[in-house]
Amino acid sequence: MFLHRKELFRSVSVGTPDPQFGQFLLEQFGGATGELTAALQYWVQSFHVEDAGIRDMLQDIAVEEFNHLEMVGKLIAQHTSTLDQTGVYEAPLFKMKGIGPHFIDSCGSAWTAAYINEGGNVVRDLRANIAAEAGARQTYEALIKRTEDAGTREALVHLLTREITHANMFMKALNAMGKLDDPFFGNIEPDDTVAITFNLSQGEDVRGPWNSGELKYVAEPGPQGEFPPAPINPDDEKGKVKGEKKVAA
Amino acid sequence: MFLHRKELFRSVSVGTPDPQFGQFLLEQFGGATGELTAALQYWVQSFHVEDAGIRDMLQDIAVEEFNHLEMVGKLIAQHTSTLDQTGVYEAPLFKMKGIGPHFIDSCGSAWTAAYINEGGNVVRDLRANIAAEAGARQTYEALIKRTEDAGTREALVHLLTREITHANMFMKALNAMGKLDDPFFGNIEPDDTVAITFNLSQGEDVRGPWNSGELKYVAEPGPQGEFPPAPINPDDEKGKVKGEKKVAA
Amino acid sequence: MFLHRKELFRSVSVGTPDPQFGQFLLEQFGGATGELTAALQYWVQSFHVEDAGIRDMLQDIAVEEFNHLEMVGKLIAQHTSTLDQTGVYEAPLFKMKGIGPHFIDSCGSAWTAAYINEGGNVVRDLRANIAAEAGARQTYEALIKRTEDAGTREALVHLLTREITHANMFMKALNAMGKLDDPFFGNIEPDDTVAITFNLSQGEDVRGPWNSGELKYVAEPGPQGEFPPAPINPDDEKGKVKGEKKVAA
Amino acid sequence: MFLHRKELFRSVSVGTPDPQFGQFLLEQFGGATGELTAALQYWVQSFHVEDAGIRDMLQDIAVEEFNHLEMVGKLIAQHTSTLDQTGVYEAPLFKMKGIGPHFIDSCGSAWTAAYINEGGNVVRDLRANIAAEAGARQTYEALIKRTEDAGTREALVHLLTREITHANMFMKALNAMGKLDDPFFGNIEPDDTVAITFNLSQGEDVRGPWNSGELKYVAEPGPQGEFPPAPINPDDEKGKVKGEKKVAA
Amino acid sequence: MFLHRKELFRSVSVGTPDPQFGQFLLEQFGGATGELTAALQYWVQSFHVEDAGIRDMLQDIAVEEFNHLEMVGKLIAQHTSTLDQTGVYEAPLFKMKGIGPHFIDSCGSAWTAAYINEGGNVVRDLRANIAAEAGARQTYEALIKRTEDAGTREALVHLLTREITHANMFMKALNAMGKLDDPFFGNIEPDDTVAITFNLSQGEDVRGPWNSGELKYVAEPGPQGEFPPAPINPDDEKGKVKGEKKVAA
Amino acid sequence: MFLHRKELFRSVSVGTPDPQFGQFLLEQFGGATGELTAALQYWVQSFHVEDAGIRDMLQDIAVEEFNHLEMVGKLIAQHTSTLDQTGVYEAPLFKMKGIGPHFIDSCGSAWTAAYINEGGNVVRDLRANIAAEAGARQTYEALIKRTEDAGTREALVHLLTREITHANMFMKALNAMGKLDDPFFGNIEPDDTVAITFNLSQGEDVRGPWNSGELKYVAEPGPQGEFPPAPINPDDEKGKVKGEKKVAA
Repeated sequence: MFLHRKELFRSVSVGTPDPQFGQFLLEQFGGATGELTAALQYWVQSFHVEDAGIRDMLQDIAVEEFNHLEMVGKLIAQHTSTLDQTGVYEAPLFKMKGIGPHFIDSCGSAWTAAYINEGGNVVRDLRANIAAEAGARQTYEALIKRTEDAGTREALVHLLTREITHANMFMKALNAMGKLDDPFFGNIEPDDTVAITFNLSQGEDVRGPWNSGELKYVAEPGPQGEFPPAPINPDDEKGKVKGEKKVAA
Repeated sequence: MFLHRKELFRSVSVGTPDPQFGQFLLEQFGGATGELTAALQYWVQSFHVEDAGIRDMLQDIAVEEFNHLEMVGKLIAQHTSTLDQTGVYEAPLFKMKGIGPHFIDSCGSAWTAAYINEGGNVVRDLRANIAAEAGARQTYEALIKRTEDAGTREALVHLLTREITHANMFMKALNAMGKLDDPFFGNIEPDDTVAITFNLSQGEDVRGPWNSGELKYVAEPGPQGEFPPAPINPDDEKGKVKGEKKVAA
Repeated sequence: MFLHRKELFRSVSVGTPDPQFGQFLLEQFGGATGELTAALQYWVQSFHVEDAGIRDMLQDIAVEEFNHLEMVGKLIAQHTSTLDQTGVYEAPLFKMKGIGPHFIDSCGSAWTAAYINEGGNVVRDLRANIAAEAGARQTYEALIKRTEDAGTREALVHLLTREITHANMFMKALNAMGKLDDPFFGNIEPDDTVAITFNLSQGEDVRGPWNSGELKYVAEPGPQGEFPPAPINPDDEKGKVKGEKKVAA
Repeated sequence: MFLHRKELFRSVSVGTPDPQFGQFLLEQFGGATGELTAALQYWVQSFHVEDAGIRDMLQDIAVEEFNHLEMVGKLIAQHTSTLDQTGVYEAPLFKMKGIGPHFIDSCGSAWTAAYINEGGNVVRDLRANIAAEAGARQTYEALIKRTEDAGTREALVHLLTREITHANMFMKALNAMGKLDDPFFGNIEPDDTVAITFNLSQGEDVRGPWNSGELKYVAEPGPQGEFPPAPINPDDEKGKVKGEKKVAA
Repeated sequence: MFLHRKELFRSVSVGTPDPQFGQFLLEQFGGATGELTAALQYWVQSFHVEDAGIRDMLQDIAVEEFNHLEMVGKLIAQHTSTLDQTGVYEAPLFKMKGIGPHFIDSCGSAWTAAYINEGGNVVRDLRANIAAEAGARQTYEALIKRTEDAGTREALVHLLTREITHANMFMKALNAMGKLDDPFFGNIEPDDTVAITFNLSQGEDVRGPWNSGELKYVAEPGPQGEFPPAPINPDDEKGKVKGEKKVAA
Repeated sequence: MFLHRKELFRSVSVGTPDPQFGQFLLEQFGGATGELTAALQYWVQSFHVEDAGIRDMLQDIAVEEFNHLEMVGKLIAQHTSTLDQTGVYEAPLFKMKGIGPHFIDSCGSAWTAAYINEGGNVVRDLRANIAAEAGARQTYEALIKRTEDAGTREALVHLLTREITHANMFMKALNAMGKLDDPFFGNIEPDDTVAITFNLSQGEDVRGPWNSGELKYVAEPGPQGEFPPAPINPDDEKGKVKGEKKVAA
């Protein structure tokens, strides 16, 4: 059950309203990386996640994201409060659609649930959430760099901070399952190609931890027959890689 | 520059065509978690990622995902090859739109770039990619559980396997940057609330690594004045948490 | 500020899970007429509506709609809880995307903010809300007629009931402004054609209160010159119709 | 059957072409509140509405909206007729997509049928139409305030006027059914909570006709047990509220 | 100016209503290849096409497509007229959204103006129209093969016939401009590579009129330096190919 | 199987980066007429087209379009490479979403597979492709006219050139089937109205090859009874028109 208090979770105070900046802020209200995406993604996950602790965490963070959505909305409302004094072409989006926030991004595209990533498995969900937090943090950084207004910056730095906190929480939860640094989860056994990497884009090739060590590197991959036909690294398959996956979440 | 060979990267062979299963397979051709999403996401990242090694990895994997897209497309083509012998209501989607793959999901929704998560920062990109791989793996598991056809299963297990491999590669790359288990990145300093967690969804509350230890737990959060007004855990701010973030990517 | 309690606003209890019916229920979770549309529409209006009373009403109802969304989500979770025991083709949507609710409609289309109608004027907003309630009520009726499960029906009848209550509240608020039965609002003066109706679709023509009385009926409208060039019903223009509009909200 | 005459329903004449204003006008050609939405919504309703009089009204107004769409299109064509003389960055949308109208809104988002609200019941349809007219009127007001061109203003005031006329017609039709000020319709009996209102958003609480009088006000709602378990206002249920609903449309 | 007569352009008469087939018919009402796409595409082109003859043709055909849309809508209304007697799971789309047509396709996806192809040049528009007619014809063929109802078939064959007629008209118009079999149009001079074709997909290579004769075939294309650096077929450039383009529309 | 070389198919070199022009270029990266649309449309057709020669051609061209997509992406990356030195409001799209290309159009709308036209029949596919090439060429012309940068222009003229080449190839392939100037294809016999044209939009009527000659012109079409009830041009039906269609592809 949701309850609401009219005071904000944390108050926001814009110094100099700037409707154009208000339009940029829409990115975090009705945009792909915004608070609505986060709030709805974590909350809808809580319906199918079975672990009570993870479910509680998802709901705690989802509700905080609703509170952030409200804060962003209030920032937009303050930035567009002086719209009538603004020149015609400075913030046409708000002049056409009205002041205050709308569920569109800074380009005017309607929010869509296609932004949400969730379903079927808690490991998948938590990885999706770490990604969502990273996207949100990135957009807050972009916004912070484009405003000089102290009140706006303080609010945005706080919101950016909380995305880091949430990422931290999701990482700790994943880590508690042993899935932060283990690519395996679910209960389907991978086949023999799990430790192969292919140099499919040739030129300026670089080797790094992602295509060396236990990971075999195929420098000249080709179709069909050239594909490694059998376990190419028997030790890996019998040992660590395959074994670990059996205890996947 | 892209080049193409008409042989598949790895051949697929359907035993008994099943147009209804072909419709499910669309989820990985034109659906949110499908191969097109992965291929385009990794490839578009390669245009703005500055590190040559990461860029090479993104391109190698992107091209492999295009090859997987081709394999899924071929599976759908084989599953719908006998469509004329199928009863009217068994696979209406293909009877209306034609046999073979289309860029729609199993419910007939057109693929949209809103599924893609990328931009601005390589850490954000790699986290998005780990999430994308987890979603793809989850859908492959769902598909594998719904078919008995040996050839189809073998192909799908292979594709699932490769998602694990790619997740592994992205994890190793992130780890090389020190960002697999560190929530910080970018160059904006978080504020004093970075180590606070809020019990905003009350009832069945659970404590775990995500809201204990170094993370302060506010059991009864309220609006405004109740929000921690100042550094609540001075040691954290001055020490580990704040310090580490300065060397973020 | 949003707060959450893990108990539902009103508990729901499904007797016999039916994943196919669960799919229909998505219409009210992630569909056009669903609870997400209502919750977000009323809530976003509260940012720009200036009247404190209307704003309070919008927020009270928005929060209740979030609670309804949670109830519908729980119904879907219960209806899909036995999915593994279900035949392969009975509820493929959930077998592909996982059990529990998702922000898609019963056909699998992702929720979009294009469903939302709001902005710029409180009269427009309230009329949009009465329309939203009517759509929601209609879908609940369709759902109630398609299930025999007593617990499901009781929950759906309650949700339908509340849509009527909300419609009632919006009507009373509009009526308090004198705008429930007055088509005028805003501050642009209409021109002389405000009391004309045109018979543009000819055949089986019917006269009723909507094209008779004070409303002049043009039986054979034509382009350009045939358009009534001047006040065609002087008394109306000088009198009731034009006069009332001047005191519009 | 549709027929077309090349003269406009009412001629439009732009004085000074302004491609940027032409872009704003797209809001009423291919935008959410635009004429295409209205025309298609009313017309599609006419296929399922059984009452011959309402059906005739819907068709008459739908055809007028097609005529308005044509007028808006012509305005856009005139405003973009001088595009080649326009500086590069003044109207890039038309420079990329060509002069004249397109089925996109002023932000370039493609028109979608998700804007349409209709189906299943004539009361629902008419309420949706009153809402559509209010949205259209609001956007015309926004447009009128942003142009000084006399010919453009005259056309837009006329179009705004007709939205008022249509709203009036829909209101009179609803009123003839007794459904303009009665929230009930359809044939599902509401439950005992129909006259309760909840103070779910607390702080700055306001009482008004929408949460007083016959409508019981729950000042401190809580989950589950706190929900009114039974008819809380017996007289209402037995009397006016419940009784009236039985004769719903 | 649009005018409407309540009789259909050509009457339709369904023998045995089949709500499931009604759902398939949505493909031509609110689907990508449907009549709404055709009607709006041709009509919107008429605003920017300068040639009076082509404009007249576009408007004539657009209006006929509106009439076809009405016929398809009536077919759907007839096929869903007995919906209440239909089993619960036979036509859930209409049971959820109401009988009669809606602006969605057979999978329930809302119609979008992204289906429309038009703008900037009459040759481009006419080519888009020939493509639209081909898609519509293809879907009608798919529908005809899936129904045994004589009245439905007669109507669909007629609609298919008219798409052929319209394709014929567009071809004749293009041919009159000399652009039916000439790839050039517009006023940008192509560069020296206009007569080269590349064998970028290797294996099962086939030569035909599209990559032989005047068209040079590069069997082993490679990046950068391997790209033909200069006019490779001087006669072509100086002669027919380059010369004709200068008189392009 | 796809392979990739890091060198471009043809190198691009921007002289003076212009982030605003970079935004326009998105139209050909993630827009309706862009290279992604072309690449995916031709490639997905290759899965269902049975003729080996056409399939080879579709794959050759599809792969070239992927190469063009890469070139456009690189142009955008170069045009946005100096973004940090750019004023805040000059290219907000890239400042919000990051430098380099994204799968959105110049207005920020996400790419959607609704742009793709394909399925069921090779003639339909090839006509769709000629239309796609025409749209792409048109947008390249618009882009070329809006930049003075020599390197950018050279690249864009090359890309425009190749669209003409591809259109030429599709035309030659269609012509080899006898379907470039023949409106018939498929195996459904048209009815008797195939050679009739209707003057449904009256005023400024024009006669041309598209509504004269073998095509009968109905100057005053009306509903129902007025529709030509029987073969109106017997010679046509028995002769050329009907006969030719039987050998359709």
